[in-house]
Amino acid sequence: MSINVNLEMIKAAQEVLKDAIRKTPLTDCAGMSEKTGNQIYFKMENLQKTGSFKIRGAVNKIANLTDSEKERGIIASSAGNHAQGVALGAKAQGIRATIVMPSTAPMAKVTATKSYGAEVILCGEVYDDAYAKACEVQKATGAVFIHPFDDDYVIAGQGTIGLEILEELPELDIVVVPVGGGGILSGIAIALKSLKPSIKIIGVQTANVPSMQEALKIGHPIEIKAIATIADGIAVKKAGSKTFEIIEKYVDEIITVTEDEIANAILYMMEKNKVMAEGAGATAAAAILAGKINAKNKNICGVISGGNVDINLVDRIINKSLFNQGRRYEFKTRIMDKAGELQKFLDIIKENRANILSLDANIFEESLALNTQELKIVVECLNCEHKTKILNAITEKGYLIY
Amino acid sequence: MSINVNLEMIKAAQEVLKDAIRKTPLTDCAGMSEKTGNQIYFKMENLQKTGSFKIRGAVNKIANLTDSEKERGIIASSAGNHAQGVALGAKAQGIRATIVMPSTAPMAKVTATKSYGAEVILCGEVYDDAYAKACEVQKATGAVFIHPFDDDYVIAGQGTIGLEILEELPELDIVVVPVGGGGILSGIAIALKSLKPSIKIIGVQTANVPSMQEALKIGHPIEIKAIATIADGIAVKKAGSKTFEIIEKYVDEIITVTEDEIANAILYMMEKNKVMAEGAGATAAAAILAGKINAKNKNICGVISGGNVDINLVDRIINKSLFNQGRRYEFKTRIMDKAGELQKFLDIIKENRANILSLDANIFEESLALNTQELKIVVECLNCEHKTKILNAITEKGYLIY
Repeated sequence: MSINVNLEMIKAAQEVLKDAIRKTPLTDCAGMSEKTGNQIYFKMENLQKTGSFKIRGAVNKIANLTDSEKERGIIASSAGNHAQGVALGAKAQGIRATIVMPSTAPMAKVTATKSYGAEVILCGEVYDDAYAKACEVQKATGAVFIHPFDDDYVIAGQGTIGLEILEELPELDIVVVPVGGGGILSGIAIALKSLKPSIKIIGVQTANVPSMQEALKIGHPIEIKAIATIADGIAVKKAGSKTFEIIEKYVDEIITVTEDEIANAILYMMEKNKVMAEGAGATAAAAILAGKINAKNKNICGVISGGNVDINLVDRIINKSLFNQGRRYEFKTRIMDKAGELQKFLDIIKENRANILSLDANIFEESLALNTQELKIVVECLNCEHKTKILNAITEKGYLIY
Repeated sequence: MSINVNLEMIKAAQEVLKDAIRKTPLTDCAGMSEKTGNQIYFKMENLQKTGSFKIRGAVNKIANLTDSEKERGIIASSAGNHAQGVALGAKAQGIRATIVMPSTAPMAKVTATKSYGAEVILCGEVYDDAYAKACEVQKATGAVFIHPFDDDYVIAGQGTIGLEILEELPELDIVVVPVGGGGILSGIAIALKSLKPSIKIIGVQTANVPSMQEALKIGHPIEIKAIATIADGIAVKKAGSKTFEIIEKYVDEIITVTEDEIANAILYMMEKNKVMAEGAGATAAAAILAGKINAKNKNICGVISGGNVDINLVDRIINKSLFNQGRRYEFKTRIMDKAGELQKFLDIIKENRANILSLDANIFEESLALNTQELKIVVECLNCEHKTKILNAITEKGYLIY
């Protein structure tokens, strides 16, 4: 197989996409710049229509279908962003679209996909079930299957992100891009290496599903075992073959980030940059924040690829990250089982101006002495120093902390 | 007193601000457009440097100081966004800045203000204490006091937001702007009414601190009683006198939104628009979302004035809004106090595919019969229909819900 995507195709895609997509902001990040000793920028594809970059590839693919293909309609399977991209792309061009989604897909994504006018079929528990169903429907209807990443026009569409970054930031030195199947990384890599070969291209995967990294190690795409991840958008077990070939040729390095690093980056983007990033969308920020990009005084752009995070997950991420940062603190202690003792203990917390988020008192714990109670408390701290100060104050008064 | 701010001053401010600020995105909102039957746009000043529009007024004010004033340095009092705006503005122009903040100000805002090179004095519990201290320091040092809103150059600086909106959206019909002291509303009103008098200008206050609305009713600014609000950025007890005069002349209407409406808007902006809005910053979106803008087929722009929301507050807002929307549900019920009964009850929840977030079982509630236990459960629902389905399933099995 040879690589078909080139700069001209990406430029053509940019023309196709002109009125269909938003030109998303490229924003400097003062905090990470100072922290890393570089100039850090983010390309905010989370602020793209449908909340992710996927619409670029989908619209470009659909625009390049033949008239007879367009008449047959299109079909895709997706649990998330690709579904919305294809649905909105089809709507913009007046084409019938069928999207097969696993019935476990978040209600918000199903509703959004339907709202773009696509027919949604809910089937099975996981993506693979939906994919199988889509193949079945495709055979029955003859609709054109739109692949989420392993397609020349899809890759060219995603590559337009690279053009936009370089137009706004010609002095770009390093770009950091999330990798699942490899579509967005392939497109950006071709665009940037064609225009300015000195740019270093770095892909980021979740350490729980490093399929592209493994593929590069052994020389071809291979299905790997996936571990559950908050970066569900890039939890792709096997790299694409087209994308593998492009990435092997154009990409300098693939690195991985942990779940905690991703959660911290999501919180950072909310607190400092005022935007929502989904797990996959935050991986580039996670790599930069965790100091995994080895550079000084460089202009580095991370791509925030999407913002479609399940809101039920967000407060869990906030909670987890605040614990990680010492801004929430859970501990157990034991107090005398008599009147006034709880109040006496809580005075220590009050004197240290910490807010109590949760308190359980119980007398049932097996190892408790008859005259003691166990307390489980979660407090809100300003930072690690404050947490340590509270901890010391408690132990100085003779209480043990578990 | 007469109004000194005019279009020329605002255009001059735009020139002054050119390199100091970001031109923030103006983003269409498909969801709210469909919901309201209008074309809804948001001006994302939450994505401005320092996370709020305040930097515009501060930089313009500082740039218009005389050389001798600049030598004296500047001073301001603020619990939040104004502090950061003044600090960054002063840094950009190499001027000494002292910011007095209440010692209760969020650590993140204090740190941010310091990081811009300002000297920060922490004093007192509330804004008024900080203001008094700032006046004291001002007298001692002779530094120039930078008012957060009641100042011609500050108002002109905020007015540049109006110019940016109209440049990108000449077909604008209605603009919706948060009001605290009235600086941002005054500036935008002068800019837009000067350029296109047909534009309707609507201000939004929190119903808990409607100081500008009250001022307009009685004909002059008056100090009102403030109730605690999540829109702390616009919790201003008394309108400015300059801003009052401008708003009385140029603004068509001041409306108010409730705390729940604000919380819902914050969640909406996170889920649909992928951005963080602080309480004050979300009031325009809250008014639009709650159907308080009486219009059809109009081009409406809401200004999201800031995104500096305390992250500890965010998971509380998410939780509250999810309860409001029926996406979380807390109930109590009673089960038999014997082996297997809890499991039997939980089977109902499982069959309805709801995730349990919290469960407390206790035998201590006073009114409990000897052979019963009380359960307190919080479940995660897809939506109101799902919640009702779960509720019905429980009562159909003979359990009572409290």
